[in-house]
Amino acid sequence: MLRREKGRLIVISGPSGTGKGTVIALLMGLRDDLCLSVSLTTRAPRPGEVDGRDYFFVSREEFERRVEEGLLLEHAEFVGNCYGTPREFVEQKLEEGVSVILEIDVQGAEQVLSSCPDSVSVFILPPSGTELERRLRGRHTDSEEKIRSRLLAAKRECAEAGKYGYIVVNDSAQAAAEEINAIITAEKCKSAYRTNLVTEVLIS
Amino acid sequence: MLRREKGRLIVISGPSGTGKGTVIALLMGLRDDLCLSVSLTTRAPRPGEVDGRDYFFVSREEFERRVEEGLLLEHAEFVGNCYGTPREFVEQKLEEGVSVILEIDVQGAEQVLSSCPDSVSVFILPPSGTELERRLRGRHTDSEEKIRSRLLAAKRECAEAGKYGYIVVNDSAQAAAEEINAIITAEKCKSAYRTNLVTEVLIS
Repeated sequence: MLRREKGRLIVISGPSGTGKGTVIALLMGLRDDLCLSVSLTTRAPRPGEVDGRDYFFVSREEFERRVEEGLLLEHAEFVGNCYGTPREFVEQKLEEGVSVILEIDVQGAEQVLSSCPDSVSVFILPPSGTELERRLRGRHTDSEEKIRSRLLAAKRECAEAGKYGYIVVNDSAQAAAEEINAIITAEKCKSAYRTNLVTEVLIS
Repeated sequence: MLRREKGRLIVISGPSGTGKGTVIALLMGLRDDLCLSVSLTTRAPRPGEVDGRDYFFVSREEFERRVEEGLLLEHAEFVGNCYGTPREFVEQKLEEGVSVILEIDVQGAEQVLSSCPDSVSVFILPPSGTELERRLRGRHTDSEEKIRSRLLAAKRECAEAGKYGYIVVNDSAQAAAEEINAIITAEKCKSAYRTNLVTEVLIS
């Protein structure tokens, strides 16, 4: 029996200091039906960056045209540059049976969940507030005030975790990656996506 | 951080000839936080059967009292004997963090899903109608008429698969067991069951 299944869009968020990057890198090594979403940006390419691999580089006019035509699943502006997620890239991968990982902040995730209600959302939580603070202190040489403000911002993000479908705790990056791997497998087993298999059994 | 999580009730159905028994046996070997539900029955113990391990053996009066008091998650009668799933056994295991596997037919599953809406339901589908027929023929020496009737009954059950949360196809028993294993892991990551972890991060 041919079991060609569509991929799923996996939205992953988590505050700075939660170790998302490591978890996602480990997850990519766990299965071969995954890719990372490639963002559209108005920022200039840096040396070594390849169009279509690191980003899709476009002019601001082109970016704005795509926003108006509804071609982006979400978009935002950071320090004068626009970033967005091209709907076409994601949909093409899903059609090919490849699930797409989209690492994005809480506001972006809300936009994606409203434009793609089918997407799977995962929030990566630090193991505790104390550990979060330790990680934020560990990698910055900033003033106490800056660290406090970063910690507060991270906790504000954590307070949004309940809006996500799944919560994974990063006390071990490997265990967290394996949980997300299981979530993707389980989501592909949801009966709503497998009714065609029932039909095949009934008519064959 | 203490991460003591409640278990989940996993309801598994699938028609005769689908290989449920093999899949469940393999699943039990994949994780140590699982047990099989032990049924209550009015049937007499057979040699070697142990009360509380194979079944809980009770009189018909006792069985009927438990039904009336709402102590069973589901119950049914087969060839003069009553069988049911004791709510207390299941709830105690879930509290201990152990997930409970309940292998049951479509009618029983409907009763359980209505009394425990939190339960996770999985339908095991044969890979195709042809393969289902081959398996049903393979293990019986029955008349053509009986085989036809069994195949029709099995297909009628498969037609109910869409009522389950998940569908797993048994073209390989090992792969099917691994999918159910992933489903259990994913279900334990659902944010509704992990809001306490969010609180811990916010207050620690």
